Amino acid sequence: MIIVGFDPGLATLGYGVIKTHPRQKTEMVDYGIVSTPKDENLAVRLAMLEKGVKQIIDTYKPDEIAIEELFFAKNVKTGIAVAHARGVILLTAIKECGKIFEYTPLQIKQALTGYGRAEKIQIQQMVKTMLGLKGIPRPDDAADALAVALCHSHTNKLGGLFSL
Amino acid sequence: MIIVGFDPGLATLGYGVIKTHPRQKTEMVDYGIVSTPKDENLAVRLAMLEKGVKQIIDTYKPDEIAIEELFFAKNVKTGIAVAHARGVILLTAIKECGKIFEYTPLQIKQALTGYGRAEKIQIQQMVKTMLGLKGIPRPDDAADALAVALCHSHTNKLGGLFSL
Repeated sequence: MIIVGFDPGLATLGYGVIKTHPRQKTEMVDYGIVSTPKDENLAVRLAMLEKGVKQIIDTYKPDEIAIEELFFAKNVKTGIAVAHARGVILLTAIKECGKIFEYTPLQIKQALTGYGRAEKIQIQQMVKTMLGLKGIPRPDDAADALAVALCHSHTNKLGGLFSL
Repeated sequence: MIIVGFDPGLATLGYGVIKTHPRQKTEMVDYGIVSTPKDENLAVRLAMLEKGVKQIIDTYKPDEIAIEELFFAKNVKTGIAVAHARGVILLTAIKECGKIFEYTPLQIKQALTGYGRAEKIQIQQMVKTMLGLKGIPRPDDAADALAVALCHSHTNKLGGLFSL
């Protein structure tokens, strides 16, 4: 099964693509980011994100998509910007794939390390180990997106099937 | 010129359609809301909003679209939900129309009443008067959307033309 994970962001959207195999190690297919320029109009940036998400889904044809939920305690202004982007990502994912799942940062940390307060570097080390990579994927947004995808592959979550 | 105004929301999106005439009173064309059920999945609700916004733009073929900016000091959780919806509205507006303008609540109040701290009822009275309506449009979200459209018609704002 192909799973695409998204770490939502307006300036930088991280994506990670993995392929699961029954009774075998999960395979890393691709990871990367979609960037939008900070000095561009918000609506134009959202359209760039939509285009990027569509291309990723068209290229890898995921069976399921996992998207990180917003953790917005720190900075309201940043949270609002990310939420605009996240709205577009959710919309595009449900239209282009249909099977989407959301995970909180806590759920992702617990799924990968068994510990909800794990540090970022511990999560990244687990991503490296679980996918048998030589190094930690860069940038952080791409590593985070792979973590979301791995979280989904390790979670027997019901639901997520939507027909429009 | 046809202007559509949007008052963004996830549960209730308000829209207002006006037609301006040189040296004549501005005409109210239509107003209303697009609602999404609170117990439905977020991505499905965003897809419903996209469909509604598309239908409004298809029906009235606006020359320009005005969208209220977020005022999120009061409730972060609500602000995040509205921002998801607003991302979808901005995306759909720029794809379907191309000419979009954003206004803060302060700008809307100042444009309609000349006073940035005007009460909601004063804004609604001005909407009624400026459009020659018999009563204040209901619900509030629709009245607010007409206010955004009127704000734009009274503002000589440059820009807003985007090509994707």
